[in-house]
Amino acid sequence: MEKTLHIDTNSRDQMIDITSQIEHWLKDVGVVDGIVIASSLHTTAGITVNENADPDVKTDFLRRLDEVYPWEHELDRHAEGNTAAHLKTSTVGHAQTLIISNGQLVLGTWQGVYFCEFDGPRKNRKIHLKVISS
Amino acid sequence: MEKTLHIDTNSRDQMIDITSQIEHWLKDVGVVDGIVIASSLHTTAGITVNENADPDVKTDFLRRLDEVYPWEHELDRHAEGNTAAHLKTSTVGHAQTLIISNGQLVLGTWQGVYFCEFDGPRKNRKIHLKVISS
Amino acid sequence: MEKTLHIDTNSRDQMIDITSQIEHWLKDVGVVDGIVIASSLHTTAGITVNENADPDVKTDFLRRLDEVYPWEHELDRHAEGNTAAHLKTSTVGHAQTLIISNGQLVLGTWQGVYFCEFDGPRKNRKIHLKVISS
Repeated sequence: MEKTLHIDTNSRDQMIDITSQIEHWLKDVGVVDGIVIASSLHTTAGITVNENADPDVKTDFLRRLDEVYPWEHELDRHAEGNTAAHLKTSTVGHAQTLIISNGQLVLGTWQGVYFCEFDGPRKNRKIHLKVISS
Repeated sequence: MEKTLHIDTNSRDQMIDITSQIEHWLKDVGVVDGIVIASSLHTTAGITVNENADPDVKTDFLRRLDEVYPWEHELDRHAEGNTAAHLKTSTVGHAQTLIISNGQLVLGTWQGVYFCEFDGPRKNRKIHLKVISS
Repeated sequence: MEKTLHIDTNSRDQMIDITSQIEHWLKDVGVVDGIVIASSLHTTAGITVNENADPDVKTDFLRRLDEVYPWEHELDRHAEGNTAAHLKTSTVGHAQTLIISNGQLVLGTWQGVYFCEFDGPRKNRKIHLKVISS
């Protein structure tokens, strides 16, 4: 079973919680046990699992990543000017593997699954979902 | 097949080798071939695969991560004060997928699987293990 | 199904596109649907998915990682002197899980799978591939 999620983003750096979209799809297709891979089909946007409670974490998270990989860098050669977004994507990962048990994602109390936009705003970002049942 | 490992940590930053715990469980349940996902159920502790020989690597590893994501940061807004731990977790990853062949993890000579505590000490940290046989 | 790829690298930091090697093997063994895990068997070399078009991205990528984790650091204790390579490996990840659909890797237009050497040049670096069919 597989599916592509489509997402519009509205700022350069943005974390969008996709946990419930994934869980609704798992319910729709009736998966009980296994894993689901959520994979960004982009090189300037990734997937991570992090805090779903205090929104300040997202603000801090994106600002800190921007300090480690600043957008402007005089030595960058990539003409598109978005080298920092490529680094951020490989740092958080382009994809995550999530465990499914009893029809639900196995996540801790404070964990959510995030699509991480690092070169937005963009229309129609794609996340490919693939289930392996067990 | 799935199982939750429970771990107590005893410092703020700590790497704990969980390779043999995973391998013992694989032997107990008799898995021969497939993959196992080891997933931290926390947003301030992750999983990585790295050097199992010289303990100085762990010391350097945790100190270097702390330089990149310092604990104190005057711009952080997250009231809990552990923003750095959230960044470190997404950097190493909340989970890793490990290959199983002939009943054993497929790891290089120097590779071990580590639970990475970034906001300890804590009691009862949880790592969820899930096997997909092939 | 599994296989080990063998790779020689020729500089300290190097990104080598292994996408077509993986895809050829998938075709050889006739996998149609599922996932493939590509796992570096080393602690100073990882796997990432990133841009396959402009080669300047690789140059920027490796230089930026080197700025975040400089090779020389007066506080490092690891006698081998390659602490930075260990950090880079855990940052990009020692392994990636890739989705297979209709006999092909599910990747975006600009995505390629890269073996990332961080402590080369080395002969006979090993990448273990494992397929889980669905």
